[in-house]
Order: sequence, then structure tokens, then C-alpha cells
Amino acid sequence: MQEVIEYLEKNKEKHIEELKKFLHIPSVSTDSSHKEDVTKAAEFVSNYLTEAGFQTVELQKTKGHPLVYAEWMDAGEDKPTVLFYGHYDVQPPDPLDQWKSDPFQAEIRDERIYARGASDDKGQVFMHLVVLKAFLQTTGSLPINVKVCIEGEEEIGSANLYDILHQQQEKFSADFAVISDSGMVAKDQPTILYGLKGFTGLEFTLKGPDNDLHSGLYGGAIKNPAMAMAQLLATMKDEQEVVQVAHFYDQVEPLTSEERQLIKEAPSEDYRESTGAIETVSEKGYTAKEHTMARPTLEINGLYSGYQGEGTKTIIPSTATAKLTCRLVPGQDPVQIQEFLVKHIEKHLPQGVELTIKREPLSAKAYKVDPNHQLITKAAESFAETFDKEAVYVRMGGSIPVVEWIDAIYNIPVVLLGFGTPDDRLHSPNESFPMAHFEKGMKTIVHYWEAVKNTKL
Amino acid sequence: MQEVIEYLEKNKEKHIEELKKFLHIPSVSTDSSHKEDVTKAAEFVSNYLTEAGFQTVELQKTKGHPLVYAEWMDAGEDKPTVLFYGHYDVQPPDPLDQWKSDPFQAEIRDERIYARGASDDKGQVFMHLVVLKAFLQTTGSLPINVKVCIEGEEEIGSANLYDILHQQQEKFSADFAVISDSGMVAKDQPTILYGLKGFTGLEFTLKGPDNDLHSGLYGGAIKNPAMAMAQLLATMKDEQEVVQVAHFYDQVEPLTSEERQLIKEAPSEDYRESTGAIETVSEKGYTAKEHTMARPTLEINGLYSGYQGEGTKTIIPSTATAKLTCRLVPGQDPVQIQEFLVKHIEKHLPQGVELTIKREPLSAKAYKVDPNHQLITKAAESFAETFDKEAVYVRMGGSIPVVEWIDAIYNIPVVLLGFGTPDDRLHSPNESFPMAHFEKGMKTIVHYWEAVKNTKL
Repeated sequence: MQEVIEYLEKNKEKHIEELKKFLHIPSVSTDSSHKEDVTKAAEFVSNYLTEAGFQTVELQKTKGHPLVYAEWMDAGEDKPTVLFYGHYDVQPPDPLDQWKSDPFQAEIRDERIYARGASDDKGQVFMHLVVLKAFLQTTGSLPINVKVCIEGEEEIGSANLYDILHQQQEKFSADFAVISDSGMVAKDQPTILYGLKGFTGLEFTLKGPDNDLHSGLYGGAIKNPAMAMAQLLATMKDEQEVVQVAHFYDQVEPLTSEERQLIKEAPSEDYRESTGAIETVSEKGYTAKEHTMARPTLEINGLYSGYQGEGTKTIIPSTATAKLTCRLVPGQDPVQIQEFLVKHIEKHLPQGVELTIKREPLSAKAYKVDPNHQLITKAAESFAETFDKEAVYVRMGGSIPVVEWIDAIYNIPVVLLGFGTPDDRLHSPNESFPMAHFEKGMKTIVHYWEAVKNTKL
Repeated sequence: MQEVIEYLEKNKEKHIEELKKFLHIPSVSTDSSHKEDVTKAAEFVSNYLTEAGFQTVELQKTKGHPLVYAEWMDAGEDKPTVLFYGHYDVQPPDPLDQWKSDPFQAEIRDERIYARGASDDKGQVFMHLVVLKAFLQTTGSLPINVKVCIEGEEEIGSANLYDILHQQQEKFSADFAVISDSGMVAKDQPTILYGLKGFTGLEFTLKGPDNDLHSGLYGGAIKNPAMAMAQLLATMKDEQEVVQVAHFYDQVEPLTSEERQLIKEAPSEDYRESTGAIETVSEKGYTAKEHTMARPTLEINGLYSGYQGEGTKTIIPSTATAKLTCRLVPGQDPVQIQEFLVKHIEKHLPQGVELTIKREPLSAKAYKVDPNHQLITKAAESFAETFDKEAVYVRMGGSIPVVEWIDAIYNIPVVLLGFGTPDDRLHSPNESFPMAHFEKGMKTIVHYWEAVKNTKL
């Protein structure tokens, strides 16, 4: 292991130059004018893996952007096989005028590297590529068998990944998976993310009259769809933030006292300070931290009806629309929850309006790994070794669909080795990543592969 | 009177040509590129009144478009004085491509004249101008004393009229007012409009976090302003359409059984058929017709929060905004009602959001004239005489601010002699006015001036 660490130190400058080249490719997957750039980024990854010494490197065509698959399977049959997942595509850089430096001309200042993708996810993917190369270049082998899956469509919903994972099940099968596409709760604070929420949603429209009406001539005879919408939405949550949809909580795995303790100990931001809200709220019987990390939520993401311009327009709107999503916890089935929402809306539909429901086709179950699983405790040890600080354990309210897919298709543990920080400004102007986390992060990965090589799974 | 009627019949073609000239002037008051055209229309009116034989004709300058004032006061001191109000400005013709003929090249087809302003209000103003001229040209005098006030800013909120009516109170003072800027419930169905609703409103915003937030990372800790808005709005009306704002109904003049009978007898559209709503609603204890015509209403005119694009965006919106207006009935004070709304919103404000209220500065009291007032019964008689059909009595949910201003400043009855029809398409493409209503309408006005000349007020 020592020679790998030395190799990383010796080639530090060279790796930064390579990373910059990777970040210079504007692989914006949502923008068709960048289609060639997206492919270039895929080629960067596949070339890197070939040069590193991987036996099999494929640039798989999809209906959208290519997927890089690679494998090195010579660690031996007694060694575990990991499936490493990441993505090389990035969010659009807009609004461009808010960037202090070119989003595709990585710039290092104040010990951070600024570029679109620096943290999400090119930077973190690159750390793994370098470590794999370092092992192969110095020791001629890897501590474990490695399968690599780096897609180019994460920022546009991973449209083709589920099918690929499903259809090439044997090829991608592994003993566990590792993903580095998340973050720590603070810089230099190793964080074990052992749970993610699931997700479901729908949008619905209430239609009153065919067109907006004169509120004087018709007000009183025609149900106002905006009022109908307000009345209906108000039935979905009480004032103590408890969801009122029947059966919503039925399958929720109760929080154990051990979990509540972990959540209590987990550092977290001051929600009021970081959001600017005048006060925090939370579900009756739970702290705000428990609610965000480990209890299901229902949120209105969008709501619109009638006139939105300046001043007054005295109309009865023709329609009102609401977009809802839920974040789910282990035990809840997203398709079932969606159905409970539909039933609730139908049951509480006010008189005088017509209902149309559009079910969100994407959904995900919540993911949780046992925080005492050896793959997790070894990750915590590797972090502690390299960051010189004990890891904290957190669950998160966000959803990463690929985690649930891997869980659903392969039924293997997924380890989320996140190296980002809360200041990385993912999806926003001036995305960045701390230079120190590159170094410590790569060392952590080296330690981790060594630590898990004798794990029996 | 007979010679006046004969004059009208003899000069019919000439009057239509004159009307067309009036309609050809694109006096769009909201469009500054039409400023000169608006003045041209004012000059058309003042020239017409001068040629008719009016003693005093003024083109009064305002901060906006000019106002035409004229008077003929030789009917004698024992005769009543009427203030006739109308407006010569028109709505923009957009969308132009939906017009079957040029909006400013009046075209007669199917016994209707098509042009912007044909009904609202140039056509109806012109009928009065012709009748006044007909009297003066044939009999050399008018049956009553007449003051004329034709403004050019009605379609942009009559910004300067209130001040003019207030400042030149003596000049504009009269025994009663007549306005022809409304319509009948059906073609050839004389209609006495004896009540209008008042109006007040406000808009308010609930702010949660400073920016839209990731619903996974913050959902559960931060109050969703869209949900707060729904919960708050739902407290304002119950499911039987009864407004729940404290004191909202306190000052409402109860409907008499005579009024309920009048409303029952008044013809009305089939609300379901004309609006496309699946069913009608109405305030508990009142029919939909009673509610629209004579009971106060509260409507949400606009509602918006968060994401409105296609698909899903998993955010907690930063803010939610609602625009509300009320239509008021006699007894209710609009400023007081606005204050009741503010108090209700403040009282029911959910935890975790900040409130900003923007009070709508415009307001109007409801207007109602006694349907048995002799000025009203004489109008009904004049209608019956010329349309050969008994007039029906209606109250309307709309508001005409000038009616309330005349009532408030001069405390005189306002007679609404409306000749429009429900098919006139005011403010829309292909505005028109039935040719038959010109003839019968002008005869009605002749009859009316004769009928009221000996009224003691």
C-alpha cells in the first residue's frame, strides 16, 4: 500500500493536470449541442482505464450518451468484486455570468478547484480512476476485482441505465457497489451516509370553467378551482406537519432508539441560518433532523392558477395545478404511496371541479444499509485513518435512483463514499471541490480497497 | 316627439356613416402610439355636440386623455338636469388575426356592425349624440337640461375622472345621471340594471426559505409556503361557499322577499352551459343567481408557487402568492372588508412563513337604486314602448366605478340604460352591436327624455 500512496504523492501535479483536462470537456448531457463533448468525456474515461491497465474496456452505445464499462478481474476468486458507479456528464453551467471563472477552464483558488463537475461527479470519479491506475502501475494488480460503470446520463435522469443494469445483469454483477457521488456533512468530517429516501410523485389539475371567467358575472355560481385546490391540498397535511393521506405511514419502519441516537449525534446545519426561514418546523413527535433524515415527507413543489402578472385581474381561473412529491423511508412502496395519494385526492375532491392526475413515472424505494455492516465499518475506519477524524453516521432525505436500482436488481450492499462538502455548490454557478479532499480522498480509497480485500460477503 | 322620431328615420343612413367615421378612429387609450387618435375621437365628440347646437362645449385637458364636457341648459328651471356619462376610448383590438374584418373599418354583416367600440362604448355614446342633435335640429330645444361628460380613459381605469368630478362638482352637478355602457340580458329584451357590486382586493405572499430548496435535504424541517398558502386559503371559505372571514357579512343588507322574487324572475344564462363547468355551486341558503347577482363573493384570481414547467422539480418553493378580490353588496364598506381580510390572514398565518400583504388601492362600494324609483319605472316604460316588450330587472355582479363615484360625490340616482347584448364580444375580437338596437335604442332615449321631463326630483 505504501508504494501506491507514494506514487500518488509523486504524481500529484500530473494528476491535477489530467483532472483539469477532464473538467475542460463541456459534457453537458441535457444540451444536444454538446453531444460530441459528452462522447469525448466518455472517451477520456475509457482511455484512462485502458492506459491504467484494465483488461476489458467498453464504450457501450445507448439510445442516449455512451456508458463506459470496464473490468479487472485478476485479484482472484477469493477476493470480492466491487461494482464502482459514477457519471461523467455534468449539469449546464447557466447562469454563466455568475461564474467567477470559466466553468470549463478549471481554476484553482483558495485551495479549491472551480469548474462545472469538480464535485458532481467528474472530480470524484477521477479520484477512483487515479487510484486504480496507481495500484496497477505500482503493484501490477488491484487488491480486489473491479467492475467500473461510468454513465453519461445521470443529470438527465439516467434514462438508459436501469435497462442496461437489468439486461447485462451477469456482466455487472458484483459483491457490493461503491459510489462516490455524495458529500460529507462538513469539510474534513468523514461521513457515512447509510440511508437515502425513496421518491414518488404526481401532478394534478382541477378544472372549473372552460376559460377564465369574469369574477363579477360568474362569482358565486362557479366553483373557483384555485379555492378548490387550496381546500384539497389543506386536507393532505395537518398543522403539525403530519401527512393526512390514509395509510401513508402504515409501512414505515419505526425509528429505533439506536437510530434516533445516531441522528442526534450526527452534526447538521442550522436549518434556519442556512435557509433563511424564520423558524423550523417538524412532524409531531420528531425533531427536524429526524424528520428530514428518516421520516417520510410530502411536499408541494409547484402550484399555479389564474393570473400571475402585476396588479389585479378579476377572474375566476379556469384551472389550478399542483405538483407533489414524497420522500419515502424504508418499508414504504413508492407505487403504493402514489396510489394512496390518488385515492386521497379523489376522495377529497371538492364539488364543481374536474380532476386530471398525471402520475410521475419515475420512482425509487428508500435505501438503507446496516450501519454495522463490515463494509460500512471498514469505510469508517479508512476515513478515520486518512482524515484523522472519526466518521459520523447520517441518513439523508435525498434520493439517488441508481442506489435503489442496484439494490433492487442485484440485492447487494451499496457503499456511498462521498467526498464532497456542503460548500461545493453542485448544480449552481462556481461549483468547486476542496483540493485537500482529492489527496485525502484518494488515500481513503486506497485504504478502503486494502481493507475490504479479505471480506467474505 | 313625433318629428324627432321621423328625423331619426329619415337620416338613418347618414347616421350610420357618421357612426362608422367615429368607429374608424383607433382611440386605444392604453397605447401611447394612439395618443393622437384618442384626441381625434374626443374632437369628433366635441364637434358633434357643437354642430348639434350645444351652448357650451369644452375639450378639457387632463394628465392623460382629454374629457369632453358640454351643456345645454335652456329647458327651464322647472325641468330636471341630467348628467350623461360615456367614454370614447376603446380596448386594444388584439389579437388582430382573430378579427374577420378590420377592427377600425366598421363592417355591417348579418345585421350587426363589427368594430372595436361598436358596443363599448362608442356605439352607445353615439346613439345619445344623435338623439340630442335630433331634438335640437327639429324642435330647437331639449326636453330637459343636459350635461354631457364623455371621457377617454375608461378602459385604463378612469385615472383622472374621480378628481375631475370632485373638483368641478358644481359644473357637473345634476339631478340624476344616465349611463349607456352596459347591456341587456338578451337581444330585444329590455333590461333594467338596478344594482352593481362593489369591489376590494389584495394580494399576499408567504415566504419560507430565501431560495427554492432541495426537497430531500430540507423537506421536514422547513415549512412549505405552498402548503402554508393552501392551509390559509382553505380557512377563508367553507365547502358551502360561505366566506369564513370574520365580520364579512355583518353589514350586508338582507335580500328582501321582493328582491328574491325579482331575481327569480330575471332571465339568466344556464351557467353550466355557458361556462363549461361540470356543475354550479352557490352560497348555502341562496341560489346561484342570487349569489352572483346580490350576495358578496370572495375569489382567488391568481395563485402561484414554485415550479410550473414540465415534469418534476423536487423543491420546496421559496414563496407562494395569492391574489384575492371580493365583490361587495350594498352595506359593505370596501376599505373595512379589505381590513377584515388582512386580519383573517394575519390570524390564520401558519407557523414558519413570513407574510407580506399588498392592498389593492382601487375599490368601489356597491351601487343599488330603488327599482320602484320613478326614473327607473319610466325607463322601463320607454323600453317597453320601443322594444314592444316588458323590461326585466336585474342586479349584476360586476362593478362600474364611475357609478359609485357619481353616487358618492353627487348622491343622485344613476340610471343604467344599457343597449348592448350578451353577443357583443366586448374586449374580444369581432366586437359588434346589433343594428336593430341602434334604431330602437335611439327611440328609447327619445321616449325617456320626454318621459322624465316633468319629473320632480
